[in-house]
Amino acid sequence: MLNNKMTELLHIKYPVLQAPMAGGVTTSTLVAEVSNAGGLGSIGAGYLTPVQMQKQIREVKKLTANYFGINLFVPNKFTFTENEIHIAHKTLQPIREKLGLQQSENSEIPTATDYYDVFKEQIRVIIEEKVPVCSFTFGIPSQDVIDVLKEQNIILIGTATTVREAIEIEKQGFDLIVVQGSEAGGHRGHFMNGFQESLIGLMSLIPQVVDQVSIPVIAAGGIMDGRGLMAAICLGAKGVQMGTAFLTCIESGAPETHKEAILNADEDQTVLTRTFSGKWARGIKNRFIEEMQEHETSLPEFPVQNILTQTIRKTSTLQYNQDFMSLWSGQSPRLAKTQTVAQLMKDIIAGANSLGVKHE
Amino acid sequence: MLNNKMTELLHIKYPVLQAPMAGGVTTSTLVAEVSNAGGLGSIGAGYLTPVQMQKQIREVKKLTANYFGINLFVPNKFTFTENEIHIAHKTLQPIREKLGLQQSENSEIPTATDYYDVFKEQIRVIIEEKVPVCSFTFGIPSQDVIDVLKEQNIILIGTATTVREAIEIEKQGFDLIVVQGSEAGGHRGHFMNGFQESLIGLMSLIPQVVDQVSIPVIAAGGIMDGRGLMAAICLGAKGVQMGTAFLTCIESGAPETHKEAILNADEDQTVLTRTFSGKWARGIKNRFIEEMQEHETSLPEFPVQNILTQTIRKTSTLQYNQDFMSLWSGQSPRLAKTQTVAQLMKDIIAGANSLGVKHE
Repeated sequence: MLNNKMTELLHIKYPVLQAPMAGGVTTSTLVAEVSNAGGLGSIGAGYLTPVQMQKQIREVKKLTANYFGINLFVPNKFTFTENEIHIAHKTLQPIREKLGLQQSENSEIPTATDYYDVFKEQIRVIIEEKVPVCSFTFGIPSQDVIDVLKEQNIILIGTATTVREAIEIEKQGFDLIVVQGSEAGGHRGHFMNGFQESLIGLMSLIPQVVDQVSIPVIAAGGIMDGRGLMAAICLGAKGVQMGTAFLTCIESGAPETHKEAILNADEDQTVLTRTFSGKWARGIKNRFIEEMQEHETSLPEFPVQNILTQTIRKTSTLQYNQDFMSLWSGQSPRLAKTQTVAQLMKDIIAGANSLGVKHE
Repeated sequence: MLNNKMTELLHIKYPVLQAPMAGGVTTSTLVAEVSNAGGLGSIGAGYLTPVQMQKQIREVKKLTANYFGINLFVPNKFTFTENEIHIAHKTLQPIREKLGLQQSENSEIPTATDYYDVFKEQIRVIIEEKVPVCSFTFGIPSQDVIDVLKEQNIILIGTATTVREAIEIEKQGFDLIVVQGSEAGGHRGHFMNGFQESLIGLMSLIPQVVDQVSIPVIAAGGIMDGRGLMAAICLGAKGVQMGTAFLTCIESGAPETHKEAILNADEDQTVLTRTFSGKWARGIKNRFIEEMQEHETSLPEFPVQNILTQTIRKTSTLQYNQDFMSLWSGQSPRLAKTQTVAQLMKDIIAGANSLGVKHE
């Protein structure tokens, strides 16, 4: 009853994708457990080197015989000046001092070309390892990348925040579209629309997208249980992608302090901020966001600011200090639980079936 | 199948409420046609004098024998200084000139006490006319007002944007709660939470509210058809309140230029602004919003700014000029149609039934 052309394409039993959260959340166990439970697990490889990626893909293969996915960031062009970096370091200095960190040395910042070279290597590994599903965030890769992946019959998923972006993804030959509602935690995936224009709630976004594209649409943002899955299906989606719900699972690699912050948060405590990475993202409001807020719009762009705050975020995590970590979360933290992936998947499907929506 | 304790309480056939949009949209014909079609029509009386209100209530009664509702703004305390008014007039002057308006004379601004006196008169009329349902926006009225309405068995609906606000509404003895998602058009209804904190998408808001309150919840924001109705029900709501979908109906009193702006808009063209009224509201971006944006945060609060922009909005409307009107709209303008209320209601129910969700 929950099967449709999307589940068929992805060789999954249930229309539930685990969001490919970057930064260590998607352990091999998490990914494999989702796929073993009938959903699609996915490696968030945005910050992984090609070597780390290859190692994790092989680990996941040992833990599941089912389909799984991998997600890459499409590299963006970016520029920065020495002066910008100097000012950003200066605004971060009081926070470094609170954490007992040394005066910051000049961070080594790779160029856009360096990032693109890594991206090409990541693509090479995905092909070599025959990863069944590859999704992209922050844009659409160039035609040659799409072509080479399609030649290998790798299923391609794009991420859109508006109808315009969804139409473009379909036009470029993708198989599926994840639509990211304003409810979503972590980084915003807009790439044609501006940040403010991209903040559309799923209740509005799903039906407007499905009316304009013909490939299957997967809904992401604030969905935590069978109620959300069935609501997304009523609106015209073929399935859902869930991040925060998997992040607090026992198998997730998120720091315990991050999990606890979500488990203790209310729906009105997340905010959108670009202070951590230079790219807008949703997380639980903490001291870092508050203290950096006045500099919000003048900070360097992604990934520059992300590099500059790396030591701060890492040190805060090691000190079990929620004040200066990025506590990414969607708008439904009240629905988060500590449980295994198997239990979460079981509850989602039971909840969905109890509502008994007819479809396909 | 679409019946539940909410439809029973409101004596309606279908769980669809027409949002009580203020400012002339909710003509007596619109309200009566919704109630005649099995939903709950509602008069947006926020800007009506007690005399105008009484006249419209009597008109509606002649056009329908069914239940209908009325909505009031809970008056807020506000202050202003002569200097604030002077600066606001100065920022509006270039726009007045474009519309061929005279240099603004000093507008007569009533006090908070004046507004409260009108509010008490409005309550008196509602009791005298035995309006079956009364809803409130911008807060919760004082206990004596709640008591006197409940004594008359008038059904009370409160408006919440967060779980905290919903819990407070239930605590104060209301019968039903409308939860307003971030998708909603027109003014934001937050009264305990700040504006930014109140922007929660319905996919997140509905399940988190229904888990914490026991009175029926009605979902509002971006819902335009049977897909949205069934999605809201899956998430735990007992029904929906729809604004933009009714605003473009033939029977609505919205200016044709406003209807056309919605019918031609995309999902990424609405913005949140307080430039028109001093209170945050969602509408289609136009020249007024753009030109006033730099003064956004320093403008006088509601209802002061609303009074100062009144002549501009009225003149722009009379000149069929979309540039300086408030073009309120939710985030789903692509789903808006020109049709009768009867047709819209018929389509909503047919669409919902085709999805066949089990409930109650």
